[in-house]
Amino acid sequence: MDKLSAEDRKRFLADHPNWTLVDGRDAMSASFRFENFIDAFGFMTQIALRAEKMDHHPEWSNVYNKVEITLTTHDVDGLSPRDTELAAFIDKLAP
Amino acid sequence: MDKLSAEDRKRFLADHPNWTLVDGRDAMSASFRFENFIDAFGFMTQIALRAEKMDHHPEWSNVYNKVEITLTTHDVDGLSPRDTELAAFIDKLAP
Repeated sequence: MDKLSAEDRKRFLADHPNWTLVDGRDAMSASFRFENFIDAFGFMTQIALRAEKMDHHPEWSNVYNKVEITLTTHDVDGLSPRDTELAAFIDKLAP
Repeated sequence: MDKLSAEDRKRFLADHPNWTLVDGRDAMSASFRFENFIDAFGFMTQIALRAEKMDHHPEWSNVYNKVEITLTTHDVDGLSPRDTELAAFIDKLAP
């Protein structure tokens, strides 16, 4: 597993405008807003099952209908293709 | 729904050492650590179902095996008996 190349990073962020780089660390984050808690936690549950299957887990928080997600890969101390894979999956679920 | 009385607050915190008051706002928080993500997210899922049933939702975050929870009641802009009820439920699930 390598870090995401500069080119792949640029292309991913251009194609997935939900995601922005985090200041001060090599990670990316996105915020999602739903109708209510059921929809927000349902979204999280679908991500949780996929994350566990990938053995690649998000850092995330939830307040009622809002979910904030940060992705990074501890093994490479930064963004890797596993983050873009999980982020693309998350975007398909997003409202 | 009233704010939690000073006496109830003191008694609850004495009986539930996981929970501490949050600086700068009338809320309480607790941190929980599990063996792995499955256990952490399973814990969150049990809380989510109860929270939705109570229509009283936590502010929370998760990183792999760690879960941080903050409780407060927006309707009273501070701690209420609903927070101690949910916190007591959470403590019963905690490792």
